[in-house]
Amino acid sequence: MNISVLGCGRWGSFHAWYADHIGHTVTLWGRKGSGHLAALMEQRKNEYLTLPESVKLTDDLREAVSAADIVVISISSQQLRAFCRDLAALGLDLSGKRFVLCMKGLEIGTGKRLTTVFYEELGSAMRVAVWVGPGHVQDFVRGIPNCMVIAAREMKLTRELVDTFSSPLIRFYYGEDLLGTEIGAASKNVIGLAAGMLDGFGYSSLKGALMARGTHELSRLIEAMGGDRMTVYGLSHLGDYEATLFSPHSNNRRFGEDLITGKPFAKLAEGVYTVEALMDLSREFHVELPICATVYAIIHDHKDPKEQLTQLFLRATKSE
Amino acid sequence: MNISVLGCGRWGSFHAWYADHIGHTVTLWGRKGSGHLAALMEQRKNEYLTLPESVKLTDDLREAVSAADIVVISISSQQLRAFCRDLAALGLDLSGKRFVLCMKGLEIGTGKRLTTVFYEELGSAMRVAVWVGPGHVQDFVRGIPNCMVIAAREMKLTRELVDTFSSPLIRFYYGEDLLGTEIGAASKNVIGLAAGMLDGFGYSSLKGALMARGTHELSRLIEAMGGDRMTVYGLSHLGDYEATLFSPHSNNRRFGEDLITGKPFAKLAEGVYTVEALMDLSREFHVELPICATVYAIIHDHKDPKEQLTQLFLRATKSE
Repeated sequence: MNISVLGCGRWGSFHAWYADHIGHTVTLWGRKGSGHLAALMEQRKNEYLTLPESVKLTDDLREAVSAADIVVISISSQQLRAFCRDLAALGLDLSGKRFVLCMKGLEIGTGKRLTTVFYEELGSAMRVAVWVGPGHVQDFVRGIPNCMVIAAREMKLTRELVDTFSSPLIRFYYGEDLLGTEIGAASKNVIGLAAGMLDGFGYSSLKGALMARGTHELSRLIEAMGGDRMTVYGLSHLGDYEATLFSPHSNNRRFGEDLITGKPFAKLAEGVYTVEALMDLSREFHVELPICATVYAIIHDHKDPKEQLTQLFLRATKSE
Repeated sequence: MNISVLGCGRWGSFHAWYADHIGHTVTLWGRKGSGHLAALMEQRKNEYLTLPESVKLTDDLREAVSAADIVVISISSQQLRAFCRDLAALGLDLSGKRFVLCMKGLEIGTGKRLTTVFYEELGSAMRVAVWVGPGHVQDFVRGIPNCMVIAAREMKLTRELVDTFSSPLIRFYYGEDLLGTEIGAASKNVIGLAAGMLDGFGYSSLKGALMARGTHELSRLIEAMGGDRMTVYGLSHLGDYEATLFSPHSNNRRFGEDLITGKPFAKLAEGVYTVEALMDLSREFHVELPICATVYAIIHDHKDPKEQLTQLFLRATKSE
């Protein structure tokens, strides 16, 4: 199968490596002027992995998209709408292609899911799925397997993509609730920020309560939005807590920790945007999200972190 | 309030320390000849904490029980039935006292819950609750707070005990499903064993999938037994995963890891017994428990751990 991966950061480069690893013909695209792409072109490696010669590198979007049966997109969530417009502007017939969003986030200002943004910009007849769940790039390239999840509006597309991407390295589960999968995948980054803050204070043992309460509040949101309240307890959210709440590799956890300990942080933490979108959804669907609201108050309103977190976990006794 | 703690291991000594810390009058009992008790009597400390002089130490069970309004029991789960017989044999009127089981397990051979064992031996009119959930002794004594849960057959008893034991150090939630709370609290130790095995192989990133799949299978068991399928996602089980699946302090996680890496293990891992009881419940209630069955096959049938764990996580694709 011809697979093009659009976006050549950590996960984009991994998806290209992986698709090649399991026998597909792969093109990896990066923006003109992208530092990541330049480094890959020069050395064929980044800090995570080495790309075999069989992966074609390009900065020509038309070429990358034209060549593909399946287009994997892995860019920053907030750039998706503009990027879809770039895709539309190519003037290609995209209707025969299948798209996979390998990214986690919600659009700021609208609270919209990434597939919603995609449909709005490219048409609701498009075939698009999300591929989310646990796993570290660092582990996969060392051969350590994991389970992930693919979800789409139509189960037929989910099955086709699972067939295309399954290997002993990644075992897929079929996601049956696209809304819950997307909200869960995006919001786990916010719980990751909270986990990092607890780590920063030496309160890591509260991450147990964080897991129980975090899943609970997001389950209620997903249910209010029309999804399945159990989805959050699957691979897309709870199943990603190891990677997000406990791993030193997690950008979001690290961002939260650095915020408390006063270290400067360099890398993108998607949760910082996602929490803003979640506050919109909280208002729109009238669901209280105490943990997300606390993270928002600390990051965006600069409230005192220790006071906020203590209030959150140690407030009045109640039923679960 | 007069509180006696029966059992002076890690958690027993903590419960005595804590009850004293929040202002109660405390007696801590250990068996005649107990090494833990002898060490506490001699040095008033163990490897976890120092007991203030205000905590009375005794090996006289009659004296400890007679003096108490509330009796906290923290011993090895498999010894509970025999211990209840010792209590009955004292010939005291126990009906006015409230009992709290601070322990996690199921009886081997019967699969019975600890409150069931207690009622069978001491009468179903007794007032008994369980006190479970996350938190490390090592953290509490350093002043790091956490949330825990108390559950009983009657909410009145739960409320009384929560009022007695709440403090800024431990915030309690009311458990509304005693069955689910007990099964969840016991079985988290089995998931802890599996987590340790994954750690032993360097497969820690599969602990995400372990959390999602572990909660799922136990949720189904609890529902089949007549409990609430959501209880497992609260503090008694999922909320205890940080302490059990991720902490270096966890005996069960450590036992699983040492089993894989071939280190000798010295400390009790309750999950080794609990998994045996869970296999009985799996048969009795016709609920498949793939993770528990894998842990059982590795520990009790000495099946090849890597093959078993790989099969477990990487078997055929399916819906969540």
